[in-house]
Amino acid sequence: MIAELICVGTELLMGQILNTNAQYIARSLAPSGIDMYHQVVVGDNPKRLTEAVRTAFERADCVIFSGGLGPTDDDLTKETVAEALGKDLVLYDDEWERIVSYFTSKGRTVAPNNKKQAMFPSDAIILPNPNGTAPGCIMEADGKAAILLPGPPRELIPMFRDYAMPYLLRRSGHRLYSREVRIFGVGESEVAYRLDSLLKQQTNPTIAPYAKTGEVTLRVTARCQTDAEGEALVSPVISAIQKELGACVYDTNGRELAEVCHFALIEAKKTLAVAESCTGGRLADAFINYPGSSAYFIEGDVTYSNDAKMRRLGVRAETLDTFGAVSEECAREMAEGCRKAANADFALATTGYAGPDGGEPDKPVGTVFVALASADETVVKRLNLFGDRDRIRHTAMLNALDLLRRKLCTK
Amino acid sequence: MIAELICVGTELLMGQILNTNAQYIARSLAPSGIDMYHQVVVGDNPKRLTEAVRTAFERADCVIFSGGLGPTDDDLTKETVAEALGKDLVLYDDEWERIVSYFTSKGRTVAPNNKKQAMFPSDAIILPNPNGTAPGCIMEADGKAAILLPGPPRELIPMFRDYAMPYLLRRSGHRLYSREVRIFGVGESEVAYRLDSLLKQQTNPTIAPYAKTGEVTLRVTARCQTDAEGEALVSPVISAIQKELGACVYDTNGRELAEVCHFALIEAKKTLAVAESCTGGRLADAFINYPGSSAYFIEGDVTYSNDAKMRRLGVRAETLDTFGAVSEECAREMAEGCRKAANADFALATTGYAGPDGGEPDKPVGTVFVALASADETVVKRLNLFGDRDRIRHTAMLNALDLLRRKLCTK
Repeated sequence: MIAELICVGTELLMGQILNTNAQYIARSLAPSGIDMYHQVVVGDNPKRLTEAVRTAFERADCVIFSGGLGPTDDDLTKETVAEALGKDLVLYDDEWERIVSYFTSKGRTVAPNNKKQAMFPSDAIILPNPNGTAPGCIMEADGKAAILLPGPPRELIPMFRDYAMPYLLRRSGHRLYSREVRIFGVGESEVAYRLDSLLKQQTNPTIAPYAKTGEVTLRVTARCQTDAEGEALVSPVISAIQKELGACVYDTNGRELAEVCHFALIEAKKTLAVAESCTGGRLADAFINYPGSSAYFIEGDVTYSNDAKMRRLGVRAETLDTFGAVSEECAREMAEGCRKAANADFALATTGYAGPDGGEPDKPVGTVFVALASADETVVKRLNLFGDRDRIRHTAMLNALDLLRRKLCTK
Repeated sequence: MIAELICVGTELLMGQILNTNAQYIARSLAPSGIDMYHQVVVGDNPKRLTEAVRTAFERADCVIFSGGLGPTDDDLTKETVAEALGKDLVLYDDEWERIVSYFTSKGRTVAPNNKKQAMFPSDAIILPNPNGTAPGCIMEADGKAAILLPGPPRELIPMFRDYAMPYLLRRSGHRLYSREVRIFGVGESEVAYRLDSLLKQQTNPTIAPYAKTGEVTLRVTARCQTDAEGEALVSPVISAIQKELGACVYDTNGRELAEVCHFALIEAKKTLAVAESCTGGRLADAFINYPGSSAYFIEGDVTYSNDAKMRRLGVRAETLDTFGAVSEECAREMAEGCRKAANADFALATTGYAGPDGGEPDKPVGTVFVALASADETVVKRLNLFGDRDRIRHTAMLNALDLLRRKLCTK
């Protein structure tokens, strides 16, 4: 089966947004045996979109669209595709009611132009959108299919994963079984080097490496008939990866580093507080983003100023005077002071130079100290991070999480 | 002038890499007045690449290629484009010498197949590559141009910026002038509805709406000869948008909501502290992500537990007992207590049900209170937010920022 992707949006042609949808969809299709030979980006222009639709249907069995399902006159993907397939749009009363109640439940007024979001061909398959007002849909014609998805990734990803991908797999007769091995503490090129022979044997399962800021993930995917068969194919490969990379593998089921810490804290019935300087709220955010974090998260102290470090955490003025706020000593006192103030089992602390300005001759921008205080010890780690301010703050946060993860999950 | 982009690489079709080149090139072209109506991704396949080249030259004056300039047999962009344009490749001795010395200077051996990287049509314009072995080139034919660039961004970006873009600017006559109007407090469909007549008049300048979680941006772009002419075209449209949407327009130069608050605090020489429950660090993070935030950011208190709300902020036990942590009263005491503890000019507070579980009959998931305490008053706003946990937390954060923005920037 051949699929083609058409991303619709003038904002893509203007470079206002990065086309992450294309990578997400391509990566999802890759191990499925569904081939993709073309990805196309066109603007919100009916003539050019019509041409792209015609060309795509000449060379593919299934055309996936992202974007152009919104309420404005610019949004014309559905209208254009329906016309190209010779289908009329009709109002789906239940979808329109859903949109109206979605708006009214939020105390917002539904605008008349929202009505077009409830219009589909009478034989369309509607794809629910729990994260926005625009439902997606599948239109079938002449043994081919058009799958229309909304543009925002937070709407597209769940809709593709939960509805479009299962539809594609049913059509193609394939089944996939995947697990994600998540790795922290070793770079992408070192992972590639150390797993070279394993990566080169890729047939079934395949191993696809991909990088996220500061981390590496390997997606191991088997083509199979049942989940049990898939697991039997995937499991030995994951064991081989774990054997090579040891404690750098922090999860084999695709969980985030913060998520691993989250569940480990809940399981261990331990509590946590965090004291942040350079990460400034991002570390607390990483935990609180998981429902149920109230079980262990006592408090976060974003002590960006020296005054707050002393007042909230009890960091001593002489420590700041002698060693500076970016120092092993300060990180240690922040973690220990935070743990004491919150009466928590563990406390994490971060302090560093996130840039772009600042730093000292022996502590340039990217120098960060992360600390973990617990009942038996306080561990401080010095990091030399690179990249822009956002990247430095992000990788500092990940390193703090990793300190806790190793404390909780490894011997 | 019309340009088209063809990105060549099976790794893009497999989703192994994110196509950042497309965004970089599109964003570079946007202000130049060169139109781009199509972006295409094809694999390293001569037949499909040839088709893509032919189609692109039918509809564009200039076709930009990224990728496929390497030494392997898979790399065939140059050969395919030259053939489509009826040109033969010849060895450029000086380019070959440069490649040989590049390899020897790195202590590496040059392979025979590297020779293809020194072959170009005899009338090509060579684009130097200081960051790799593959030079780029421009092939001109029938008044049209093909610009071939290497795939890796660290090679493509400097080559495009230093050689390809100046070439394109010389060929094209005009330019574009854009400004971004940023809007908070009114949804995308309502913006479209209220600006309907203005949006429909789109000729010069054009108005392109696009949405980011919880916000709306309108990009107003004029075709012009000079920036002054562009500003003269764009400025009355921006005034008309401001007149219709009033204080919901928070910036007309593309700045983020947090950025507007950041600079307003610095300009007003005022200090800030934040007390977060449901946003849990994200509000502090939004400020600290801007260099220079130490000028005003005193501290953040992530008081996710009731215990921390009382201990850190002085929220009264009876307030929590009577009204609950998710209440106007609690938000007020959080903001006022935070302001007092930090001795700051302003304090923001958030408390709410971010879900997916929790909530009360009259306060379902999505109910959030945001508060701003200042010297003269404390303002509390009740919100009914929708979406998943991440979206609710994000839009709660934006609403807190907007309280501060309206206090600082509007009368």
